[in-house]
Amino acid sequence: MTTQVVKKHMVVAQNASGRNMNVPIYRMKGARPGPTVYIQSSIHGAEVQGNVVIYHLIQRLKDMDICGEIILVPNCNPIGTNIKAGEYTLGRFDPVNGTNWNRGYFFDKDAVEHFAKTVTREESIEGIKQRFRAHLSNAIDNKLAEPWGLGLAQQLNLKLQQMAVNADFVLDLHNGPVSTRHVYIPEYAKDSAKLFNIPHCIFIPNVFAGALDEATFCPWWTLQESIKTNLAREVSFNVEAFTLEMGSQEVIDFNEGNIDATSILSYLNAKGVLHECDIKPTEMKRLGVYLKDYKTLFTNWGGMVEYMAKPGQTVKKGEPLAQILNIDDLDTDNGSRTLEAPCDLIPILHFPSASVLSGTQLYKVFTNYKEL
Amino acid sequence: MTTQVVKKHMVVAQNASGRNMNVPIYRMKGARPGPTVYIQSSIHGAEVQGNVVIYHLIQRLKDMDICGEIILVPNCNPIGTNIKAGEYTLGRFDPVNGTNWNRGYFFDKDAVEHFAKTVTREESIEGIKQRFRAHLSNAIDNKLAEPWGLGLAQQLNLKLQQMAVNADFVLDLHNGPVSTRHVYIPEYAKDSAKLFNIPHCIFIPNVFAGALDEATFCPWWTLQESIKTNLAREVSFNVEAFTLEMGSQEVIDFNEGNIDATSILSYLNAKGVLHECDIKPTEMKRLGVYLKDYKTLFTNWGGMVEYMAKPGQTVKKGEPLAQILNIDDLDTDNGSRTLEAPCDLIPILHFPSASVLSGTQLYKVFTNYKEL
Amino acid sequence: MTTQVVKKHMVVAQNASGRNMNVPIYRMKGARPGPTVYIQSSIHGAEVQGNVVIYHLIQRLKDMDICGEIILVPNCNPIGTNIKAGEYTLGRFDPVNGTNWNRGYFFDKDAVEHFAKTVTREESIEGIKQRFRAHLSNAIDNKLAEPWGLGLAQQLNLKLQQMAVNADFVLDLHNGPVSTRHVYIPEYAKDSAKLFNIPHCIFIPNVFAGALDEATFCPWWTLQESIKTNLAREVSFNVEAFTLEMGSQEVIDFNEGNIDATSILSYLNAKGVLHECDIKPTEMKRLGVYLKDYKTLFTNWGGMVEYMAKPGQTVKKGEPLAQILNIDDLDTDNGSRTLEAPCDLIPILHFPSASVLSGTQLYKVFTNYKEL
Amino acid sequence: MTTQVVKKHMVVAQNASGRNMNVPIYRMKGARPGPTVYIQSSIHGAEVQGNVVIYHLIQRLKDMDICGEIILVPNCNPIGTNIKAGEYTLGRFDPVNGTNWNRGYFFDKDAVEHFAKTVTREESIEGIKQRFRAHLSNAIDNKLAEPWGLGLAQQLNLKLQQMAVNADFVLDLHNGPVSTRHVYIPEYAKDSAKLFNIPHCIFIPNVFAGALDEATFCPWWTLQESIKTNLAREVSFNVEAFTLEMGSQEVIDFNEGNIDATSILSYLNAKGVLHECDIKPTEMKRLGVYLKDYKTLFTNWGGMVEYMAKPGQTVKKGEPLAQILNIDDLDTDNGSRTLEAPCDLIPILHFPSASVLSGTQLYKVFTNYKEL
Repeated sequence: MTTQVVKKHMVVAQNASGRNMNVPIYRMKGARPGPTVYIQSSIHGAEVQGNVVIYHLIQRLKDMDICGEIILVPNCNPIGTNIKAGEYTLGRFDPVNGTNWNRGYFFDKDAVEHFAKTVTREESIEGIKQRFRAHLSNAIDNKLAEPWGLGLAQQLNLKLQQMAVNADFVLDLHNGPVSTRHVYIPEYAKDSAKLFNIPHCIFIPNVFAGALDEATFCPWWTLQESIKTNLAREVSFNVEAFTLEMGSQEVIDFNEGNIDATSILSYLNAKGVLHECDIKPTEMKRLGVYLKDYKTLFTNWGGMVEYMAKPGQTVKKGEPLAQILNIDDLDTDNGSRTLEAPCDLIPILHFPSASVLSGTQLYKVFTNYKEL
Repeated sequence: MTTQVVKKHMVVAQNASGRNMNVPIYRMKGARPGPTVYIQSSIHGAEVQGNVVIYHLIQRLKDMDICGEIILVPNCNPIGTNIKAGEYTLGRFDPVNGTNWNRGYFFDKDAVEHFAKTVTREESIEGIKQRFRAHLSNAIDNKLAEPWGLGLAQQLNLKLQQMAVNADFVLDLHNGPVSTRHVYIPEYAKDSAKLFNIPHCIFIPNVFAGALDEATFCPWWTLQESIKTNLAREVSFNVEAFTLEMGSQEVIDFNEGNIDATSILSYLNAKGVLHECDIKPTEMKRLGVYLKDYKTLFTNWGGMVEYMAKPGQTVKKGEPLAQILNIDDLDTDNGSRTLEAPCDLIPILHFPSASVLSGTQLYKVFTNYKEL
Repeated sequence: MTTQVVKKHMVVAQNASGRNMNVPIYRMKGARPGPTVYIQSSIHGAEVQGNVVIYHLIQRLKDMDICGEIILVPNCNPIGTNIKAGEYTLGRFDPVNGTNWNRGYFFDKDAVEHFAKTVTREESIEGIKQRFRAHLSNAIDNKLAEPWGLGLAQQLNLKLQQMAVNADFVLDLHNGPVSTRHVYIPEYAKDSAKLFNIPHCIFIPNVFAGALDEATFCPWWTLQESIKTNLAREVSFNVEAFTLEMGSQEVIDFNEGNIDATSILSYLNAKGVLHECDIKPTEMKRLGVYLKDYKTLFTNWGGMVEYMAKPGQTVKKGEPLAQILNIDDLDTDNGSRTLEAPCDLIPILHFPSASVLSGTQLYKVFTNYKEL
Repeated sequence: MTTQVVKKHMVVAQNASGRNMNVPIYRMKGARPGPTVYIQSSIHGAEVQGNVVIYHLIQRLKDMDICGEIILVPNCNPIGTNIKAGEYTLGRFDPVNGTNWNRGYFFDKDAVEHFAKTVTREESIEGIKQRFRAHLSNAIDNKLAEPWGLGLAQQLNLKLQQMAVNADFVLDLHNGPVSTRHVYIPEYAKDSAKLFNIPHCIFIPNVFAGALDEATFCPWWTLQESIKTNLAREVSFNVEAFTLEMGSQEVIDFNEGNIDATSILSYLNAKGVLHECDIKPTEMKRLGVYLKDYKTLFTNWGGMVEYMAKPGQTVKKGEPLAQILNIDDLDTDNGSRTLEAPCDLIPILHFPSASVLSGTQLYKVFTNYKEL
């Protein structure tokens, strides 16, 4: 059994030399019917591990029997990947205007609620899905055709979203700064948390802030809720979207990438994408928090920091998080001081540089977490 | 008659060496009672002309008779001013995370509507203002005391807003990239457009997007509307806030700065801040648009551009806006092509570099403008 | 009479996505024999006006009768052109390591002197030129084949130099920050100063600092000197190279570009590259300095600056060059102060931002200049 | 026994707000006579571990008995430390012009040779040293007083060098990108390699490229050589200077810093700076290379890289150094390929980002190394 890979390139931007910048699109279509899966990586240019994960996915899926179709888009931001500032990659935002590359996807809540009114008690789930996809796709087309134009990040986002809009399962592969593996999961798809081999899960509400996962699940979730309100009809569209954080930015690791690929295959298998595949989720401890309990610890001082608490480690209230060097007091007791955990927590990621200004996101941490 | 200047410095951040970064605060208090005025400049680090305007304001106000108090904070973003990237100043956003320095001010609409319910039909305007100011100031204090901390831009913004919150008139001095002078005016204070000597006026609705002018007028406008709804009582608090765009970034000009100072003094005089001052608004042509008619023209191509239409110039539909060089076709008729105005318009500003990627904000323009 | 343009692209680098970055190469070969000319532009990414000049050159040369061959390489640095940092182009140096894009060309003085020893009293000029070109080309090939590899800027430079090495006349088109037109001329080719329509000329000695013009003329000049020393034989190879500074960076202007093209055609015509062409140098005032008298004025303070003296303007000792704003003293007489010219001078260029740290190159100026 | 610490601050620059930027200077003077030691850290802003080392040195030296004086300057580049570009520190070069912060120190070989002629056969070593120090100090003063000013990096460097010029032992604390500990040692002070606890030693010749260590030892080495040539007199001034690379940039580690401090104390003790101190160099394997055998491996391709060979690890010719991902061939055998060691080597450092353009310094490696 070998699944063919069809490869194309799509132009998503032009650089200042007027040259086209494109993304590679790998499509793997199974012989059997089934769901559509969309996986992209590196929308933030420095978050490169997902590209290795997609490499392993493609290599392994070639020998598998796919039900439906899997679309994989590695290195989906050819501009962000190539903005160097010093030795690192300035990949999280457009260097011209600061726009986060992951905030320009499309969602129009009013339009969804308006669409919901066209749904009848009798219309089949498949019928609704088909009509709604056409509606969404059309809305994105209209947005892209905006006569006065659109910003670079938004153009890029919408061109990618146009591919994701037909998918049942959307995975957006990211990395944290210095980070343990974690995943963002819409609350209504909470059960899927156990299908990935990812130890830290964040459950997010039906709120749109511009990211691809939200742009994927908010419409379906909103539609579902509106139909319930309008018709007292309970429907489930089984469309899911996740942001997977595959460890730390600026680093690739082929071995880890293969493990990450297994985690994703385990999810896809559970969702019926793989025929006669025996990859199952690992038995492991998974911890979950609601988004409101996923806290960011900002500094109100500037200085140089040793990150004592490592991502993934359990820290009790009062235990040391960081040790801070004070350049102007190296001869006194204030030369070094300790920052303590304000409550029981698990650091998920920390800032990647020892040098911080006041107002820096030092750590993001789980508080009030529960085992799933 | 000489008005004393009291100068202080306020710490707004710490840098990575742990050193305090502060802003200068100049306070000029008149012998007579009157309104409070707050003027700041350079929240965007490359937009420096406002600093010269404040220089001229201080020098001239020293010899004037002030009613009330004027607080002037030049160079109000000591971090943004000092982020060089090449020869220019990367001043619009935090280089660490892309956060626009002018989007972290505070406004809580629900809290304002809640406050409005405490207002009675009998409470005096002054009484309401005093209570509401205390409410706002307290809310900012609470925000600043957030136990998990705040981002750098937000910390900076809130510390500045804490000074602005007691003002009746707030002026935030900015620059465009390559720009003619223009001003953002809340629709309810439309009459004030004629008090400045600024030819291009943009009227903005009661919508908050994080900027200082909005953070100043949205609470008062919302309060006013809520009181009308709740009590059918028409009140006017006479609190106004403006973003003044003083020409182009990266440039200072002392002569122009003095003219700009006259424009501001003319407004302040009309508002009763100056005693026996004869500075009046100039007779001039002023054009206005609603925000929805202030259009941004994005490119959908990358290349090199000559900006043919200059800021402030009237352009008819079909007339040339820009000429674009195509590096890979210098030998053909496609080597250069012209971009035409999609409708009658006035360019207010254009991008400051000839080299543009696709999705660049080429021009911002007035359409459907009217003479005031 | 129409001269054909043969267009090719040459790969000069790969970006972080692994994609080739290439430069366009336009070759125009005349029916008649004659010299070889090499013209490139934008090795510094923000210095874009030369691209427009090349556009006009190609369009006009198409209708001319060329003797020899002209090779034109616009936008010769596809990496530098595309490094945005804020709205501007970080084009002067590699953002990874700070390497100036115009300092990695090749010159080995010892090898030239060694080569000189192989020249006999009888060898024809053409014979020497041919052998020396082969020698230089071979040396560049060897350098490019360095088994441990080379830095990005050096790889780019050498690939371009490999094209320039066969040329008799090499023009490298640059821009200053905010700048009047000026040109760097090797002292031995001083007479050519009057062949361009450029008002400010800098005469440079036989010293190599890595730039293309030096890398072109230093070998020939050194060879000529060595032959004189070794054989007491006076030879002239008539190889010339210039860096032309076509006004200010970050800006293109099609009309100015056509005037610049005329200036270059006037030089080429004088050098026998154009058949029956009547373009002659303009009668104009041309001022020249030796490199040692082309001074850089650094600040020893930081602050905000109005550049009062404009590029090209005559300034007497003691006249104002700049006015400086002092943010922390806006209420005193120190709020603004004037920087005076330390001697009679002509500013050629100034820093393009009002905001300067201490140690900034405020102005570059002509001192002890003479009319040519 | 407690040694007092005298702390001062020295202004080294002004920022664009016109505010002074200063460095802390800690002086520890012993009761007994002895040599002068100068230690600085973080001239490259992202190389912060040396600051922690200085912290431990000061804390430990407080309880020691010093012979002579130790001057410690942590965070010696307050500009470089504070240039953020994304989350990292753009610390190796001036963001305005690309100037490496460690290339503007002063050395004038001709002046040293000229000075050497004033030395007589009879003059005492101490007499020569004293006169030469005055000469050097004077030359730096003259340079700093240059009437047209100096660039920012050079001003900073010279102000620091003015303190180092009187020292017998100069230690400049740096970090590599991702790096094992290593040290640059002038060939004439080769014996000192065994006094530090640093496993990798690079022996450098008497060549000046602008760094502090070179600027310190080149004058003394040149003077020594000139006196030998002129007078056939063998002198030894016992002035030594080293660049110590304390692991990886962007990271501080207090425990490692204490170990590094012990290494430096071991050197200082051997040089007679510490009275009755029992800190001795550790017995350990130390490897040395000549600078010519310390190779940089550049890529000639761009892509994404896993650094398989870790700093400090022995790698045989043909063993894998790196694995490279090829984004556009994830479906073929070219999706990943291996880069092999071109010869036996030890990687000392590698590039800190997985994303590399062609011409990137992938690894710096020891070849032809020997055990000391």
